[in-house]
Amino acid sequence: MTTTGITTPRGFRATATTAGIKASGKPDMALVINEGPEFGAAAVFTRNRVVASPVKVSREAVADGMLKAVVFNSGNANACNGPQGDRDAREEAELVGRALGIDAADVAVCSTGLIGDLLPMDKIRAGIEQLAAHAETGGLDGGPAAAEAIMTTDTVSKQAVAERDGWSVGAMGKGVGMMAPSLATMLVCVTTDASASSQALADSLKKASKVTFDTLDIDGSTSTNDTVIVLASGASGITPSQEELDAAVLEVCESIAAQMQADAEGVTKRVTITVEGTTSDEQALNAARTLGRDNLFKCAMFGSDPNWGRVLAAVGMAEADMDPERISVYFNSQAVCVDSTGAQGAREVDLSGPDVDVRVDLGTGGPGTATVRTTDLSHAYVEINSAYST
Amino acid sequence: MTTTGITTPRGFRATATTAGIKASGKPDMALVINEGPEFGAAAVFTRNRVVASPVKVSREAVADGMLKAVVFNSGNANACNGPQGDRDAREEAELVGRALGIDAADVAVCSTGLIGDLLPMDKIRAGIEQLAAHAETGGLDGGPAAAEAIMTTDTVSKQAVAERDGWSVGAMGKGVGMMAPSLATMLVCVTTDASASSQALADSLKKASKVTFDTLDIDGSTSTNDTVIVLASGASGITPSQEELDAAVLEVCESIAAQMQADAEGVTKRVTITVEGTTSDEQALNAARTLGRDNLFKCAMFGSDPNWGRVLAAVGMAEADMDPERISVYFNSQAVCVDSTGAQGAREVDLSGPDVDVRVDLGTGGPGTATVRTTDLSHAYVEINSAYST
Repeated sequence: MTTTGITTPRGFRATATTAGIKASGKPDMALVINEGPEFGAAAVFTRNRVVASPVKVSREAVADGMLKAVVFNSGNANACNGPQGDRDAREEAELVGRALGIDAADVAVCSTGLIGDLLPMDKIRAGIEQLAAHAETGGLDGGPAAAEAIMTTDTVSKQAVAERDGWSVGAMGKGVGMMAPSLATMLVCVTTDASASSQALADSLKKASKVTFDTLDIDGSTSTNDTVIVLASGASGITPSQEELDAAVLEVCESIAAQMQADAEGVTKRVTITVEGTTSDEQALNAARTLGRDNLFKCAMFGSDPNWGRVLAAVGMAEADMDPERISVYFNSQAVCVDSTGAQGAREVDLSGPDVDVRVDLGTGGPGTATVRTTDLSHAYVEINSAYST
Repeated sequence: MTTTGITTPRGFRATATTAGIKASGKPDMALVINEGPEFGAAAVFTRNRVVASPVKVSREAVADGMLKAVVFNSGNANACNGPQGDRDAREEAELVGRALGIDAADVAVCSTGLIGDLLPMDKIRAGIEQLAAHAETGGLDGGPAAAEAIMTTDTVSKQAVAERDGWSVGAMGKGVGMMAPSLATMLVCVTTDASASSQALADSLKKASKVTFDTLDIDGSTSTNDTVIVLASGASGITPSQEELDAAVLEVCESIAAQMQADAEGVTKRVTITVEGTTSDEQALNAARTLGRDNLFKCAMFGSDPNWGRVLAAVGMAEADMDPERISVYFNSQAVCVDSTGAQGAREVDLSGPDVDVRVDLGTGGPGTATVRTTDLSHAYVEINSAYST
């Protein structure tokens, strides 16, 4: 079997096409079809209050715990386009439904690209026709093609599979945070041939997202379009336990998140931040996020500079219990700051490698702990994100 | 009169010296002396819970509403140096007190520079002797020299004066946020020869800071050393009303804040963000800060890119009441987004000038409004802040 992603689990068909939405002429539309016999689905969406039209349509579609298809486009986010944007997203679901002979209410829609330009609906309509035609004639192993068609400034497509005894979970994803030059958004589609209720899927997805996508924080920006959808076909005839499902979904989400972090725009360092020694996991997450979003800290990482003072200055502003006189910081397991004071040799720690592990103990002795994955702030990030949007 | 800052008001003496703390060999210590007849004082300090040793000493010194002198050094923040840092800061106050024949409890201490290195106390001790000797023999017009000695990566010194009928307010300041390459911190000293109680001074400073220094947000980072001190000598014999004092203090604080914004590291654009149409001023400030800290927005500003979609994506995450379908955005007074949808010609707005004015209406019709001053995110920012700390 050559497929390695969403079409690895049985019961899924995927196709891709070049509709001409991207100026680059690269593939820009994809269709994922769940052929059943079951159609359980769950999703998590952006926490941004400014949500793109496709997010509104997909939220409604998944509300009953059932989806039969997801249509994707890259090159245009269909966000901030007013009522016309909503109508366009709805029309996409209707066209897919008509082409596949299914209810439009069972079709989710995902878009990624520039905010504020209307979808080129002539190209979208033709694209949906092509996707449906491909699905008729083949498309059983279209997972890799779909993963490619949803890319924006990703440099590699992102797929993952968790193989189990008689069933599997597959996934594809693109982007990370809002990193790209006006292109944006994290889109992830997870498939499984396990038999699983929408509630079981929602539980697994929620748990997995919490420790993967939710803690991946490249620039603190949250897209209007972020969407993670999980679909279950039941085609394996196997009903895993909740724990088994959780573990398999977590496995593919971890893989996709790690691929996103590695491919994040302008990245020269992958930085993993773990905070402990505070009252709750939530507080630890606040502190880890605050540090992961601190530009001075991120610039220091870019410069391979073990400037631990910036770590203290950053976490000192976090909403987390701490003992300001008892904070310790470790870079790549070496203590650089103990009891809020520099450790011997702290300025000589070698951070020249591509991975930096940062551990911060806030000194209260509390049990709270959390890990966030981020990146450095590089010239390439500024370059890519200052490019003109048109 | 050639002085234009803290020595413009009568009753103040200032001196500066080169103690050798800075590797560059530039002036790095300053002393401001209030010769009375009154010694009212007030101060605001960093909100960071990790506070530098000089902040602890100054907080205690100003607690009784009286200060007679402030000693400054640049080149070393004396932050995160544990009990030895506290002892060193306290010794500074004692040495100044002894040299001037005043109580150490009436001496505030301000430091700015790298976090985590012990102060070179031999140089500090010699520096204080020099400062005090200069003050004996002259120093009446030492304001400009003091303003220069507190600079870190500031490219120009920052002074301001508000002249009134028979009295005046002067000020000097350095830095902005935590912008510099491991050097850091906003330090501001305001002087007046008005007769004013410490309570009146505290009121004026609090009001002025709220709309000047508190809303100046270059990178979201908050220094461990930020300090703004106001001193009143009463030498004019004039007691202005609270409103008069407020206005004069605000005038110099506005000037210093504007000078800081203009000189912020790596800046190519000065960006003023005003948010309105939400429930409270506090919510408007939350939204303005969230936008002002959004790297994608700041990169777009660097690229002179009227990418208003990033404005919506950023404010959509802010803790502020909004109508997500009714948000409007103006760049340099031109509407680029109305009712959360792109306006005609939005992509053609010219942002090539050095000043960009951004106005965001969150669409609730509420009375809340706030303004934040920030800058773009440029290659120079990354360059400066990724330089090795040693």
